[in-house]
Amino acid sequence: MSESAAPTAPGTTEQDGKVVESESPTPVKEMKSLVLTGFGGIKMLKVLQNPEPTVSETEVLIRVKAGGLNFPDLMVRQGVIENPPKTPIIMGFECSGVIEALGENTTGLNVGDRVIGFSDYKCWAELVAIPAKYVYKMPDNMSFHEGASFPMNFATAYILLFDIANLRKGQSLLLHAVAGGVGTAICQLCKTVEDVTVFGTASAGKHDSVRDNLTHIYDHATDYCQEVRKVFPQGVDIVLDCLCGDDTNRGISLLKPMGKYILYGSSNIVTGETKSFFSFAKSWWQVDKVSPIKLFDENKVIGGFQLRRLLFQQGQDGYVRDIMNKLMKLYKDKKIKPTIDSAWAFEDAGDAMQKIQDRKNIGKIILDPTAQPKPRPKEATTEPATEATADGEAKKDETKSEA
Amino acid sequence: MSESAAPTAPGTTEQDGKVVESESPTPVKEMKSLVLTGFGGIKMLKVLQNPEPTVSETEVLIRVKAGGLNFPDLMVRQGVIENPPKTPIIMGFECSGVIEALGENTTGLNVGDRVIGFSDYKCWAELVAIPAKYVYKMPDNMSFHEGASFPMNFATAYILLFDIANLRKGQSLLLHAVAGGVGTAICQLCKTVEDVTVFGTASAGKHDSVRDNLTHIYDHATDYCQEVRKVFPQGVDIVLDCLCGDDTNRGISLLKPMGKYILYGSSNIVTGETKSFFSFAKSWWQVDKVSPIKLFDENKVIGGFQLRRLLFQQGQDGYVRDIMNKLMKLYKDKKIKPTIDSAWAFEDAGDAMQKIQDRKNIGKIILDPTAQPKPRPKEATTEPATEATADGEAKKDETKSEA
Repeated sequence: MSESAAPTAPGTTEQDGKVVESESPTPVKEMKSLVLTGFGGIKMLKVLQNPEPTVSETEVLIRVKAGGLNFPDLMVRQGVIENPPKTPIIMGFECSGVIEALGENTTGLNVGDRVIGFSDYKCWAELVAIPAKYVYKMPDNMSFHEGASFPMNFATAYILLFDIANLRKGQSLLLHAVAGGVGTAICQLCKTVEDVTVFGTASAGKHDSVRDNLTHIYDHATDYCQEVRKVFPQGVDIVLDCLCGDDTNRGISLLKPMGKYILYGSSNIVTGETKSFFSFAKSWWQVDKVSPIKLFDENKVIGGFQLRRLLFQQGQDGYVRDIMNKLMKLYKDKKIKPTIDSAWAFEDAGDAMQKIQDRKNIGKIILDPTAQPKPRPKEATTEPATEATADGEAKKDETKSEA
Repeated sequence: MSESAAPTAPGTTEQDGKVVESESPTPVKEMKSLVLTGFGGIKMLKVLQNPEPTVSETEVLIRVKAGGLNFPDLMVRQGVIENPPKTPIIMGFECSGVIEALGENTTGLNVGDRVIGFSDYKCWAELVAIPAKYVYKMPDNMSFHEGASFPMNFATAYILLFDIANLRKGQSLLLHAVAGGVGTAICQLCKTVEDVTVFGTASAGKHDSVRDNLTHIYDHATDYCQEVRKVFPQGVDIVLDCLCGDDTNRGISLLKPMGKYILYGSSNIVTGETKSFFSFAKSWWQVDKVSPIKLFDENKVIGGFQLRRLLFQQGQDGYVRDIMNKLMKLYKDKKIKPTIDSAWAFEDAGDAMQKIQDRKNIGKIILDPTAQPKPRPKEATTEPATEATADGEAKKDETKSEA
């Protein structure tokens, strides 16, 4: 990662963890970026000018066309993840775009290539320098918005279903947040296997929009275990859980013999716009530890999966590249296609986050550095500015869903 | 299960849980059987005459040619399993033989068919009545001894590798007791996948015999985790553990990212010929409970598998039949072939058990109701007799390996 990609803007300096304007800005080329200035609510996100990154020898420089917004970004913003980053930092774990420069030790990629990529932060900017090992060429017919919707959600869904759970013909599956980015990807991939029964939960208001994607849909507030057992008294073959907390225990209890439970998120932790130690602790404490001997007695499997950890801390980029190749083929064969909820300007990222937090999105939310911000009734900021915050209209909803 | 298959012999009656001779035996056809008369050492096994079973409408009657002996049979004998059976009981979970009679509601099988089958006890006898759902036709070129070596070990190995662990090209695996029945089956099935690295443990004396079956072999007493990490510093993709106890914790710690640990036995519990509460409790207490959140943080999967539970309590005979069909095809294609250590007369079952307990077998141990017992230097019993015990020569070793 090149030093010049540091997220502190040239027109600003970092002082006691806060970004402030300095008196003598350095004359370097700048780019628009979406910076987390500290942990907390959406007002901590600011659209700032930052120096353009340069590439190290193993990196490629990408002109970003779209960035993906995922639920874990909300957890990063609140600081409720393991090893939170130092702020200020440009956020964003995935993007699509066009290669503008190549490090000396990169192969197989060319300037001008349309690509998608993972990055350990930094994607929500006009330019990003990414290690070439995390970059993949896009199919010709894939749009940039589709491209930015693709890596996190589909790689997660594919690994969950086909590596860990080993989904086979005739099996049954329960998942939550079926209308979200990973949820819609899981539903699509399940349709590539014969005779799979998908039980899903989602807010009641979304049921009509996603009903065709799965077999049975329930409001999460209902006793979904009881509902599933009305259909399959023995339970299901696979539970994919992005919620954690009490849903973990319920999920494990719902497994039939040879069943597999996989935890791949902990969105139950996020109950309001800012960090709630109460929900954090509750979600952790509620999860029962499990003895391997109990799994032996019951013929069950439990596991966890976290794509960012796998890529950025555990060095499994080769494994993920194999998965991405398989997914690109499925896209070209028209077996899968990202569901996009909406695309937002950087200046409207706060609204976009609030939409995910309120569980109102159906499919992926995209941040587009080329998009124009929505007109604001008051205090509107239509041009990117160093001091612009990214909370926009969402300000009025700030305390809406706090625990 | 037909009532007439009750294991109490007609020349005996059950009295306070003990088999004693009664004064007026009922004149029914009798068969030789290997009966566990109570929990404990090998002297609790007796060769007894029992009434021939008759079939219920869903069962088939099999003239047994060979029965499989597995490590869990030792645990049954000692009573160190969940839900131990009532004694006296004819032991044996698998056999090969020829169908002699069919229940009215059985299909696809004929009198005279050479078959293998699972049964919830009762296999170690000249005849056994088994639900047809647990019976499979044998390939023509499979011997009866091979047939009785096949179901438990290969079905367990196949499910561990290809359903739960989802073994793929280029992966690595650690297993224990590589020279045992399941161990040899796992090693063979691993060779059906390209470029799999198998690490195994076995007693030093067996290394030469099994070295060609796997990649790296260690004495279990060595620090095998350290040895494996010399080859693969990140650890292995799959750990298959039949030992339990501290090996469970070590196995889970040895997983690389995306690794899978599966517990499929607890032979560490058996440290001597008779039940040791100390080893039992130690093995249980040593196993750490695991939080699903830890698995999420580390990208790991843990699980347990127990074929008998799956078949006899959890009703997954259809699933197991699919697996058996795949295994029969692999046998016909000469991809797999049971490794047989030795075959023993019922009268020598005690010696056979002691050989497994001393970890001296390489491959499967077979009990053959048609085999002649070994000549005994003293107190030799060459004919099946109601009072014959099945401990034979092993008597002198009774306390040898007790904890």
